[in-house]
Amino acid sequence: MYKWFCLQFRCSVFLFVVGITTSALADEGMWLFNAPPLKQLKEKYQFEPSPQWLEHLQKSSVRFNSGGSGSFVSANGLVITNHHVGADTLQKMGDAQHNYLRDGFYAKTQADEIKSTDLELNVLMSIEDVTARVTSAVKPGMTSDQASSARNAAIAAIEKESKEKTGLRSDVVTLYQGGAYHLYRYKRYDDVRLVFAPEQQMAFFGGDPDNFEYPRYDLDICLFRVYENGQPAKIEHFLKFNSNGPNDGELTFVSGSPGKTDRQLTLDEMADTRDRYLPYVLNMFYRREVLESAYSARSFENARKAREDLFGDQNNRKRYDGYLAGLLDPQIWSALQAREKKLRDAIARDSKFKSTLSAYDGIKRAQAEIAKNAPVYNYLEQERPVTVGYRGPRALSGNLFKYARLLLRAADERTKPNGERIPTFRDSARESLELDLFSTEPIYDDYEILRLTNSLTDFASQFGAENPMVQKVLAGKSPHARAVELVTGTKLKDVSVRKDLYIKDVAALQAAHDPMIDLARMIDGPARQARKIYDAQDEIKKQAYAEIAKARFAMEGASTYPDATFTLRLSYGTVRGYEQDGKQVPAFTDFAGLYQRASEHDNQPPFNLPQRWIDKKANLNLSTKFNFVSDADIIGGNSGSPVVNKANEFVGIIFDGNIQSLVLDCIYTDTQARAVSVDSAAIIEALRKVYDAGALADELEGRK
Amino acid sequence: MYKWFCLQFRCSVFLFVVGITTSALADEGMWLFNAPPLKQLKEKYQFEPSPQWLEHLQKSSVRFNSGGSGSFVSANGLVITNHHVGADTLQKMGDAQHNYLRDGFYAKTQADEIKSTDLELNVLMSIEDVTARVTSAVKPGMTSDQASSARNAAIAAIEKESKEKTGLRSDVVTLYQGGAYHLYRYKRYDDVRLVFAPEQQMAFFGGDPDNFEYPRYDLDICLFRVYENGQPAKIEHFLKFNSNGPNDGELTFVSGSPGKTDRQLTLDEMADTRDRYLPYVLNMFYRREVLESAYSARSFENARKAREDLFGDQNNRKRYDGYLAGLLDPQIWSALQAREKKLRDAIARDSKFKSTLSAYDGIKRAQAEIAKNAPVYNYLEQERPVTVGYRGPRALSGNLFKYARLLLRAADERTKPNGERIPTFRDSARESLELDLFSTEPIYDDYEILRLTNSLTDFASQFGAENPMVQKVLAGKSPHARAVELVTGTKLKDVSVRKDLYIKDVAALQAAHDPMIDLARMIDGPARQARKIYDAQDEIKKQAYAEIAKARFAMEGASTYPDATFTLRLSYGTVRGYEQDGKQVPAFTDFAGLYQRASEHDNQPPFNLPQRWIDKKANLNLSTKFNFVSDADIIGGNSGSPVVNKANEFVGIIFDGNIQSLVLDCIYTDTQARAVSVDSAAIIEALRKVYDAGALADELEGRK
Repeated sequence: MYKWFCLQFRCSVFLFVVGITTSALADEGMWLFNAPPLKQLKEKYQFEPSPQWLEHLQKSSVRFNSGGSGSFVSANGLVITNHHVGADTLQKMGDAQHNYLRDGFYAKTQADEIKSTDLELNVLMSIEDVTARVTSAVKPGMTSDQASSARNAAIAAIEKESKEKTGLRSDVVTLYQGGAYHLYRYKRYDDVRLVFAPEQQMAFFGGDPDNFEYPRYDLDICLFRVYENGQPAKIEHFLKFNSNGPNDGELTFVSGSPGKTDRQLTLDEMADTRDRYLPYVLNMFYRREVLESAYSARSFENARKAREDLFGDQNNRKRYDGYLAGLLDPQIWSALQAREKKLRDAIARDSKFKSTLSAYDGIKRAQAEIAKNAPVYNYLEQERPVTVGYRGPRALSGNLFKYARLLLRAADERTKPNGERIPTFRDSARESLELDLFSTEPIYDDYEILRLTNSLTDFASQFGAENPMVQKVLAGKSPHARAVELVTGTKLKDVSVRKDLYIKDVAALQAAHDPMIDLARMIDGPARQARKIYDAQDEIKKQAYAEIAKARFAMEGASTYPDATFTLRLSYGTVRGYEQDGKQVPAFTDFAGLYQRASEHDNQPPFNLPQRWIDKKANLNLSTKFNFVSDADIIGGNSGSPVVNKANEFVGIIFDGNIQSLVLDCIYTDTQARAVSVDSAAIIEALRKVYDAGALADELEGRK
Repeated sequence: MYKWFCLQFRCSVFLFVVGITTSALADEGMWLFNAPPLKQLKEKYQFEPSPQWLEHLQKSSVRFNSGGSGSFVSANGLVITNHHVGADTLQKMGDAQHNYLRDGFYAKTQADEIKSTDLELNVLMSIEDVTARVTSAVKPGMTSDQASSARNAAIAAIEKESKEKTGLRSDVVTLYQGGAYHLYRYKRYDDVRLVFAPEQQMAFFGGDPDNFEYPRYDLDICLFRVYENGQPAKIEHFLKFNSNGPNDGELTFVSGSPGKTDRQLTLDEMADTRDRYLPYVLNMFYRREVLESAYSARSFENARKAREDLFGDQNNRKRYDGYLAGLLDPQIWSALQAREKKLRDAIARDSKFKSTLSAYDGIKRAQAEIAKNAPVYNYLEQERPVTVGYRGPRALSGNLFKYARLLLRAADERTKPNGERIPTFRDSARESLELDLFSTEPIYDDYEILRLTNSLTDFASQFGAENPMVQKVLAGKSPHARAVELVTGTKLKDVSVRKDLYIKDVAALQAAHDPMIDLARMIDGPARQARKIYDAQDEIKKQAYAEIAKARFAMEGASTYPDATFTLRLSYGTVRGYEQDGKQVPAFTDFAGLYQRASEHDNQPPFNLPQRWIDKKANLNLSTKFNFVSDADIIGGNSGSPVVNKANEFVGIIFDGNIQSLVLDCIYTDTQARAVSVDSAAIIEALRKVYDAGALADELEGRK
């Protein structure tokens, strides 16, 4: 499943066959919508998308702030994404009586559509280059602390001005690791209602074994509708639904928000990713997967509560496992070395840029400082970028600590000028913060205690039980006793309590003496100190990467695209199969193949069909195309991206990459790497003939 | 499941209620058979076991060299142990057509009994104190290298002499961490045949969730028969089977081989266990559990191949997770501190022993050196004590590397005098080595490749991909490509090849150029160097612990017992329930409870009953006692230990400990900690009425 931080990868037996593309004609690139690959498309495909064509696709594309992509597919606010992108919301909407995540959902009428707990969708309305303003804030002679503050203040000011002027969510996006800064303005939707989800087993047929494999047979879709003022939003730009899907060999486009690639990192930083960062996160995911599996086995209700966490952590584990396997492959590593050598040689030859070579050393030194600071930063400050949902630092896992820290810092940061605040607490981010903080997601004491006990134990193991910070956090208790005390003692489970506390000032919040907030306060000093160290080193890297980017622009011209940043990008590629172990893997699968695979495994999990699919088999046209592959350049975060044809019609939806596509994190290849999509034909056939969702199919096909 | 290195512990919600026993009358102790707790038994229970009583129990007890305990229960060589102790053998005996581990087995006649692949059983025949001879080998002024060699040579000489004189397996056992050395002589049995095993689901009903819990409902038994010269062995000492089980409140005895306790370690060494060793092994088990689960999900045949590994690794993960939770509990840690303080204060008061205090510092320094050396030692040399089955160092997981190293070192070590060899290759250990090396355990290429790929990746992550040793081992390939090359290239899958290579000398072995042996040779230098460092520091610790032990003997007299060493020990305790969360947990469960628990969980895994148990329910007396608890002092390795009454009759079999017993690793408590056993009454009832194994029940009851 391709999703931001939810990329999957199967850790099984495989052989890399990497043909690293050097030809400019390959379908490489996650292109900015304000710098599209017009030249490449014209040269290879004789296709010239008009500005209107691009604007239509851009504004039909939807970013799921929870980490994924989607698109408008009706004038009445219908949004399609992957089931696994919607899964977070399906989990949060469920309760002991409703297992939406496992069992699916269909709202026969609009009145039946259910409001999500905290989902925010973003539609990109405009892009503005603000590089000059951001970079000029940093003056020569500033320390990296000063430079980091000055840069952040400039960014905050730009965002605030824009928000006040346009009313739109305004994010300054760092491109080329600091080589450029663009202001992205989004229309926000936060009244998002669930329309349709299949059973998870149908969205994820084949489970873990088939994850990151091809051929595939998954109906990985989920439909929501955005509302404004209590009514379905009227949407100007939406994709026309083509129910025939694409043809083999056809040119298609993918418009979505790939999360993060590392294609422009220096080799030194890549080595740190390979030798420190990936082993670190893998250990975390192994640990969580085991914890959640063991908890789930205890009862059906436990399994329901932990379902999305387990699914997500397994997916993450596979994704990082696969990425690490790629970086440990000497063929891949040699290609990365050659790429860096080529640029460094060119820089060395050009007297204008000779000083740029020292930027590489600067990055190496800064990265070493980041690595040294990493344990405290990871365990006490945070583990994931704020933009994709903050779930607490590694030592303090769970929703309750997350809320406690947000409340504490909201009060603290509010007293500061906007430009000096942590980004989450800037005026321009207020609505997103409040959506997160006042989520109606259910909180389960037992599950919170389990996760907190585990993460406190992990914390003590990382630093040693006699570490003063560990002793302070545990307060003379065992991890379990401390977790029980905190979870049962806090009042933060109650949304109204969070709302009350949110408007309090620092002193009143302190006087409230909620144990979880008291804990957040206790560690806030060292946590902020770790953040400060990180930011200062990151600033050094930004300046160095900006220098390298300047040299790269000068040498490669505009024929380049920045690393993925969970912002909207345009990719393109041909629908085509590939050769593996001497056999041709066809581009398409069909429903007949689904039934065959289930039958080969005696319809046993994870190859079992939902009862509905067994009952309705005779209704179906079994030759309906189900999933297909193309060589478009995608990565985690692209999950749910629409696949469109030259006529800008919806012909499919990205949901995964095959095993060979793992290397796309750091380098493009099209020999075997493929993006995997659900065919639009399968969506209509399944809605009409399996789910009795004719009204929804009619709306998609514009018959309503 | 209590088994050597297979102790289980559930990582769920619990509260410690620890009452650390200081009274001499508590049922504490894993006593040596040559120093039994006569005084304690007399004082508390007015029971005085005779030398004959003790000899009978000792010689009826059987050690499973694969890691567990058992006992003779018929004159014709019938041995009973736990299913989970037999599981390793059941796994190795299976193939694509026979899933003995999952489905169970019953040999209706002796002709149907199947020979195990490599199982060795040991019966303790005599104990001799050889402390003086071992300790006198170490002369004042020796370096720790010299001392270690001298001590090893003395031990090797004692073992060799004994083996030659008596023909018995002869092991010098280090007691009190070096305070004493005893020579244990064992009768070996290596023609061991499978007689009966229930379905694993019945032996492990409740699976992971009920593991380390009570009440329990498990038929965790397995029966083998030892043969000599192709005939069932005639056994003089076997336990009379009492089909009524014990009564509530009754005094019972446990005779088995607890694996390892840490009750006499210094606080510094315990802190290293808590902060370094346990987190290290837990990360390893998390990693393995995830690998094996993912592999198992791919097909039924994969699940069969990985079944015992997955079961074992899950069990280990829980056991260490629980032990760590205990050490992070301030109540437990305070009790450990108080224990050490008491001894140190006493030492400080006694002018004879004042110099002994520096032994504590010596242990601390040596342990720090061991910790520093640990990565290389663990990844390249070994991860488990040789006595319990050597499965290869962490970097090179799998059977094929294990065989390669055994062959390489057998050739190398054979050229040295017996006293200078690594223990595995001493003359006295030859039969056990050959049984292991020539095992007919099936080897699966795909599974070997999977495990080797994973462990090579782990290796690269631990040391960094640019580490010279990592680069040498990977030989310019990815972990997966290297694993494929090694596994498909080696000839060691074939037992006859191993037999051929085993008799070759060093040069001939080198000339054979088996890629796996070449790899073993490549890393043998650094691996042996790491072993040498470990041995030298361990020698320092042994001398220091011996000093502390001397002081302890002087102060506490003989009222003490050494830490567990996977050698035969006598424990005792009362059958009794306990209070938990204000409720009384009764000592016994019955068959009715089993059916009720299955029904509460809709008979879904892991609470599903095998079909046979559903079909035969009406046959059963549902009030038959099934499992029971006592406060006997047991730990991993005691799995399968017979529970006997004062008449020395078999009344049950140990298979687990409850959640509160985890702390027994480092300290005894009887407030809630309980040993869990299968009642002898349940064994007979199930054999006769569920398994139609009347002949076997007759043999047990002496009716044959």
